[in-house]
Amino acid sequence: MKVALTGITGYAGLQLYYLLSQHPKVEAIQIYQHDLEKPEHVAKLNPRLSEVTALAKPYDSGAIMEENDVLFLATPAGVSSHWAQPYLAANFPVIDLSGDFRLKNPAQYEKWYQKDAASKDALAQAYYGLADLKENPGQHYVANPGCYPTATLLGLAPLVKQNLIEVDSILVDAKSGLTGAGKALKKANHFVQANENLQVYKPNQHQHIPEILQMLQSWNPDVKQLQFMTTLVPVDRGIMASIYVKVKAGITEEKLEQAFREQYANAPFVFIQEEGLPDLKSVVGTNNCRIGLAYNPETKYLLVVSVIDNMLKGASGQAVQNFNQLFDFSSTAGLHLQPLAF
Amino acid sequence: MKVALTGITGYAGLQLYYLLSQHPKVEAIQIYQHDLEKPEHVAKLNPRLSEVTALAKPYDSGAIMEENDVLFLATPAGVSSHWAQPYLAANFPVIDLSGDFRLKNPAQYEKWYQKDAASKDALAQAYYGLADLKENPGQHYVANPGCYPTATLLGLAPLVKQNLIEVDSILVDAKSGLTGAGKALKKANHFVQANENLQVYKPNQHQHIPEILQMLQSWNPDVKQLQFMTTLVPVDRGIMASIYVKVKAGITEEKLEQAFREQYANAPFVFIQEEGLPDLKSVVGTNNCRIGLAYNPETKYLLVVSVIDNMLKGASGQAVQNFNQLFDFSSTAGLHLQPLAF
Amino acid sequence: MKVALTGITGYAGLQLYYLLSQHPKVEAIQIYQHDLEKPEHVAKLNPRLSEVTALAKPYDSGAIMEENDVLFLATPAGVSSHWAQPYLAANFPVIDLSGDFRLKNPAQYEKWYQKDAASKDALAQAYYGLADLKENPGQHYVANPGCYPTATLLGLAPLVKQNLIEVDSILVDAKSGLTGAGKALKKANHFVQANENLQVYKPNQHQHIPEILQMLQSWNPDVKQLQFMTTLVPVDRGIMASIYVKVKAGITEEKLEQAFREQYANAPFVFIQEEGLPDLKSVVGTNNCRIGLAYNPETKYLLVVSVIDNMLKGASGQAVQNFNQLFDFSSTAGLHLQPLAF
Amino acid sequence: MKVALTGITGYAGLQLYYLLSQHPKVEAIQIYQHDLEKPEHVAKLNPRLSEVTALAKPYDSGAIMEENDVLFLATPAGVSSHWAQPYLAANFPVIDLSGDFRLKNPAQYEKWYQKDAASKDALAQAYYGLADLKENPGQHYVANPGCYPTATLLGLAPLVKQNLIEVDSILVDAKSGLTGAGKALKKANHFVQANENLQVYKPNQHQHIPEILQMLQSWNPDVKQLQFMTTLVPVDRGIMASIYVKVKAGITEEKLEQAFREQYANAPFVFIQEEGLPDLKSVVGTNNCRIGLAYNPETKYLLVVSVIDNMLKGASGQAVQNFNQLFDFSSTAGLHLQPLAF
Repeated sequence: MKVALTGITGYAGLQLYYLLSQHPKVEAIQIYQHDLEKPEHVAKLNPRLSEVTALAKPYDSGAIMEENDVLFLATPAGVSSHWAQPYLAANFPVIDLSGDFRLKNPAQYEKWYQKDAASKDALAQAYYGLADLKENPGQHYVANPGCYPTATLLGLAPLVKQNLIEVDSILVDAKSGLTGAGKALKKANHFVQANENLQVYKPNQHQHIPEILQMLQSWNPDVKQLQFMTTLVPVDRGIMASIYVKVKAGITEEKLEQAFREQYANAPFVFIQEEGLPDLKSVVGTNNCRIGLAYNPETKYLLVVSVIDNMLKGASGQAVQNFNQLFDFSSTAGLHLQPLAF
Repeated sequence: MKVALTGITGYAGLQLYYLLSQHPKVEAIQIYQHDLEKPEHVAKLNPRLSEVTALAKPYDSGAIMEENDVLFLATPAGVSSHWAQPYLAANFPVIDLSGDFRLKNPAQYEKWYQKDAASKDALAQAYYGLADLKENPGQHYVANPGCYPTATLLGLAPLVKQNLIEVDSILVDAKSGLTGAGKALKKANHFVQANENLQVYKPNQHQHIPEILQMLQSWNPDVKQLQFMTTLVPVDRGIMASIYVKVKAGITEEKLEQAFREQYANAPFVFIQEEGLPDLKSVVGTNNCRIGLAYNPETKYLLVVSVIDNMLKGASGQAVQNFNQLFDFSSTAGLHLQPLAF
Repeated sequence: MKVALTGITGYAGLQLYYLLSQHPKVEAIQIYQHDLEKPEHVAKLNPRLSEVTALAKPYDSGAIMEENDVLFLATPAGVSSHWAQPYLAANFPVIDLSGDFRLKNPAQYEKWYQKDAASKDALAQAYYGLADLKENPGQHYVANPGCYPTATLLGLAPLVKQNLIEVDSILVDAKSGLTGAGKALKKANHFVQANENLQVYKPNQHQHIPEILQMLQSWNPDVKQLQFMTTLVPVDRGIMASIYVKVKAGITEEKLEQAFREQYANAPFVFIQEEGLPDLKSVVGTNNCRIGLAYNPETKYLLVVSVIDNMLKGASGQAVQNFNQLFDFSSTAGLHLQPLAF
Repeated sequence: MKVALTGITGYAGLQLYYLLSQHPKVEAIQIYQHDLEKPEHVAKLNPRLSEVTALAKPYDSGAIMEENDVLFLATPAGVSSHWAQPYLAANFPVIDLSGDFRLKNPAQYEKWYQKDAASKDALAQAYYGLADLKENPGQHYVANPGCYPTATLLGLAPLVKQNLIEVDSILVDAKSGLTGAGKALKKANHFVQANENLQVYKPNQHQHIPEILQMLQSWNPDVKQLQFMTTLVPVDRGIMASIYVKVKAGITEEKLEQAFREQYANAPFVFIQEEGLPDLKSVVGTNNCRIGLAYNPETKYLLVVSVIDNMLKGASGQAVQNFNQLFDFSSTAGLHLQPLAF
């Protein structure tokens, strides 16, 4: 396979490059960059690739489709909504890591992202690729899920689908490392601000809220809203979603655990803890999601702790999973990653 | 004042020593240590005090009362329950930083601490010194509150006292730095385990749960339970209590904010944010509590973010506040601390 | 005393504000800001001062001298060289935390700072205020030393002054926390870049090299050069200068230690370790410098480890020391700071 | 290949397990553990391997040789000196990550490690496997180098071998993350002690000093001693060796750089920076060593900055390199690792 990649200057693009360069089915990676007038050394675009000798080419959808079998878009919000049309028209495979094709309702996109949405028709052609829960039925434009939605939805799926919880009780207190806040220099990610600190951000305003809600509602239309908060914690990578839900009367702890085990029996990247709750570091560096449960018989609350590496399972790793699904490769191809934790 | 201090080998004792050594009303600090047979250099007991030339003396309640005006007990749980009797009998002022005298019900103490409780009579003589909410009415044995209860109760007081929230909806997701986990060497506080990590601990089993509940119930007997979780975050100091509560129908945002402003109008250490939510670092190094509110009109949930320095407001700083109250000193005496944040 | 302060938006200015607001001799702090057209709330200029109700005034040297007894300049390099003249002319007391008046030779300043220097005459009127080594002889314009020079010079003074080392062997490997790299957003201080990382910066090009050399040469003209390197380490505050020097033949370890003890016998902020080498954290939050020695009889190298808090002893704390000297206050006035370490 | 591994409870053993489980030539990994009486689940020995279903077997050299093709020893100092004999006698391939077979002189081992040494004969049969500098000539017992020696020797090799520096000027200021200090709970690796701190340790007493010196002297007998210091920095992984050497008169910068480029022209894991100095994070997660040079024409000092991941290139990664050499596999087999840095 020849794969095209755009967005090499950002975190997700670099991570994708690392993964694809070791993928057994990838023969060549070609880098395209939107603001080039002529080819430029990749090492100039991203100093972390100082030993890469290839040239990045100016972004050109025609050339991309001619020279490659698939395109990975690791561009910021507001780009692929404008770029997608030729690929959709040609039914050319695209894996889009941005938020532009995740929400089916253009008005929702415009409300939460405050940018122009793609058309309703275009959005309808995209597949929401939550790769550990469903196989792609054949759609070529994959909207790769956001990092918080991935951790949260994997932690809620069996509960909502099997109707085990009070649907109006869902409350998520999510914590994220600083890679989640992006590469752009901001006060919040200055070391002196972020280190030894906890920062709640975008309270009730995170653009991942409607993405989570849309999926929950597709599983159970009774879900009406979601209390979701995000806090920056001083680590590089990782998301911990602490998900609190009120368990329905009569549902036992065994039933809850069984629902998780059944849901993920054949999911090679999702692990339900045998005992205890997972720590964040257990997944950093891997494409895994680890889930643990703590039921409180006094309050009837279940805490689901769901941890992922936001750059892998929450972005580029899941993108490779979607790539594997799209082309019928082994689901773990290119994703045999070693954790760094001890 | 001559003050006695025991527990100089631990974090809270050292922090108290630092505070008391700059307190304008403290003329001498005498260190007592339970496992000494004869006087020993303080520097030997705690290398951080390498320039202190004083000697620590063997612990002896008679000598302590004879030579001092007040005793600070910075001992672990299970010590002061055995030591308190002579001080109670003599009505000698004690500020006890441990959990031994906080719960009024001995059975509760024994359930949560798994140690022998002090007698019901002894417990009844102690005053729960949540210093920013009430003045000590004159009791001489002060049970200094725990760190999580301090952050949580200050964040809930106006809501529960004024009956503004659904009392069965209280859910606290608290985050703490590693000083909160103590000085004893444990796997969870090894740098390689704690760094770049998030660790949920004691799920539904933290001994501060009954302490919080006891106080909430004293304010509103309708409070029956509490969903409370604790996560270790890789910082040295600080607690952020993310408190989620469902607001009663008809209560406006303005009413909520007003309740907080009124409650703390005369509290020199409690600050209600003008806008935004406080970050953890804004209080580290100080005796302050900062509180911010984020109301979600969709879900009717109010998030109260309450941050403190667990070693100061959550332990030794509040102990000095209680000392100031006990002896009618200015409430801020010895507590003009500068934050380290920028 | 009424003190004027300019530079409240930066780290050093904020730290000065914290210190001066607790200084027993300071009655009022007035903030001046160069880019204001009319008075503005201090809280707007620096959100960390959200509870300060005072107004900052537009910068105006005439008003400053009229309304205050002293001026603290916490401005970046290249500002005070232009601003100093009226204060020098009026012999008005100024404590200048920038590098503009430290080097006596304008050409050196222009080479290392790549900005216009103050005039040679103006420079001659400034006093280099290395406060733990010498008392100000009465000069009113104090050039407050840089952070690296403070740590390094305190670690070298007894050795160079008493001629105990080979002067051509001095090599300093200095490590600094991120506050040392300033508040401006840069790639090097993005959390994801700085965390879990070590970054050597400005190799052989740090502007503190000539400052150190100038002072060493004033002590011993035989010193010709200096090998000095700086590495950013992922901590907020603190400098550790690891100073390697070859000891002259015949000089014993006892002699070396004695030289340090004698030098700092009356320096209330400098501590020579009784045993072992100081860790960085032992000084963070204080105005102290701690020094430890490790002599290697095989190589004849002495390692001097000198640690300071770069924002206190290395900037604002030393500025307050200079203020105390200038006005004959107790040398420790306003500097009774508690370390945060345990 | 069937590989035996002992030491799975430690950091290096776990890291080896991760690497070997992805190695294309490894068909089975069998775990042996010295303190077992009967087989035990690996997950019990190391909770990070909670999904591994294999059993660890009691340590038994006969069974190990019968059931495997090679043994990796990831045991602490003082173990393999007692265990090696049967493997040496049988000429069975062993890769020993401990320090027990690195020093050729038993007296040196006993001085620096303060443990009994293996016999001189046994030591003579071991090969010091500095894998990026020389191919194993066929010896079956490989002493895998220490982490500091690897970073330091790769940074010094071309300079010492080509006689470009004053051999009595070598000074190394090395910084290491906390994994370098091991898994055992100690005060120095408690989070509250290590975080936001720098700790110089084992001054002039680190057991890697004679290991470095032995190799330097094999390259150039004129090297007599070494000034080497180690500082713990608050990161999980990585070593930065800041190597200072005085360049011989007449040696140009170009010559210095050329020496490095020639030395490592065919070394797939060693990279000489095109410009600037490498940051630590550029190698964490990989088996690479990155080297940068900064020459100071004033002082004639060359700073060589050599960075490695101490757990990979400095331990388990290099062990896999030695494994590849021993069995004539591709030198990069099993070592296509992705960095985590951005």
